[in-house]
Amino acid sequence: MAGLFITLEGGDGVGKSTQAALLETWLTESGHGVVRTREPGGTELGDEIRSMVLHRRGHIAPRAEALLYAADRAHHVSTLVRPALERGEIVLQDRYLDSSVAYQGAGRVLVAAEIRALSLWAAEGLLPDLTILLDLDEEASRARLDRSRTEYDRLEAEASEFHARVRAAFLDLAADEPERFLVVDAGLPVDEIAGLIRERVRAKLA
Amino acid sequence: MAGLFITLEGGDGVGKSTQAALLETWLTESGHGVVRTREPGGTELGDEIRSMVLHRRGHIAPRAEALLYAADRAHHVSTLVRPALERGEIVLQDRYLDSSVAYQGAGRVLVAAEIRALSLWAAEGLLPDLTILLDLDEEASRARLDRSRTEYDRLEAEASEFHARVRAAFLDLAADEPERFLVVDAGLPVDEIAGLIRERVRAKLA
Repeated sequence: MAGLFITLEGGDGVGKSTQAALLETWLTESGHGVVRTREPGGTELGDEIRSMVLHRRGHIAPRAEALLYAADRAHHVSTLVRPALERGEIVLQDRYLDSSVAYQGAGRVLVAAEIRALSLWAAEGLLPDLTILLDLDEEASRARLDRSRTEYDRLEAEASEFHARVRAAFLDLAADEPERFLVVDAGLPVDEIAGLIRERVRAKLA
Repeated sequence: MAGLFITLEGGDGVGKSTQAALLETWLTESGHGVVRTREPGGTELGDEIRSMVLHRRGHIAPRAEALLYAADRAHHVSTLVRPALERGEIVLQDRYLDSSVAYQGAGRVLVAAEIRALSLWAAEGLLPDLTILLDLDEEASRARLDRSRTEYDRLEAEASEFHARVRAAFLDLAADEPERFLVVDAGLPVDEIAGLIRERVRAKLA
């Protein structure tokens, strides 16, 4: 496909939105068409699913949760991401299949390989050209989130031990696919992180 | 598991609800614990998903639709069907994985084997002990539905050619698993159908 698909991954509160905004500005000023989006959500149907999964009271069976995220992904990729890539645009996306694998696979009771297969079926095989993993040790991540929180949601309420497992899962995924991933220490100054990201994106665009 | 899992399948308007009600009465009067349920729906989360899939305006990507049905199934089986079966009860369910395969697989753009695999992953492999397929030729089915309709939904709005393909898909599924399926001509008198069903259920209970 003509465009470039870039995803941002990492725990809550590591600065994905900040870096996505900086990267979008830089790319737009360089003359690129940019679509900024996120999962879960990113479409009207996706927002309904997001609200169902994140803000619902009561238990959701683990496989049901995984399938709802996959449904959101299927609709989002089919109706928004793939068309933008086919138009030659750059898609900057907050969370994609690596989040599913890290959160549902490693963090919960499901098998990571099954979650990955489910996601890839949903997305008809679409993998990012570049995945930026903002890595922050779990304690620093939680402290940062507590300072900035505006909204409560189910995943964020899980215990810190869960977040440690998620972080380890993200790092494992990055180690498995070093060409796709750029791992950045999210504890660095914002401008320094932005510079490292721009450097890698520039190489991808060349 | 101790209980018995019975599903009713077939196109809209073939009399599944009528036969489920008659079977429930007969089983209850015979002293059995019965749970009557349906998919999509059957749980609070399932009703939200059902309403999202059936009554929503606008396009839903085919894989997203399949994944939403699978999410409903995962939650329903995990929180309602399996616990009832483990208590030794009889679950009478309107639609299950055969509907997914027939409607989404054969009727739409997806591969039937993939839909089946998705459903079985959602349900952790749970298959019915008995599936009653109420089979009616497509024209008679549509005429019956037009007389009794109280509600409009997306699937029912599809063309009659679609219904013919769904019917053929159901019959193929029944031919593949003759031990699991009882195929009944839904054009027979209601009491005669009920008698054929009771006969097969009695054998399963023996």
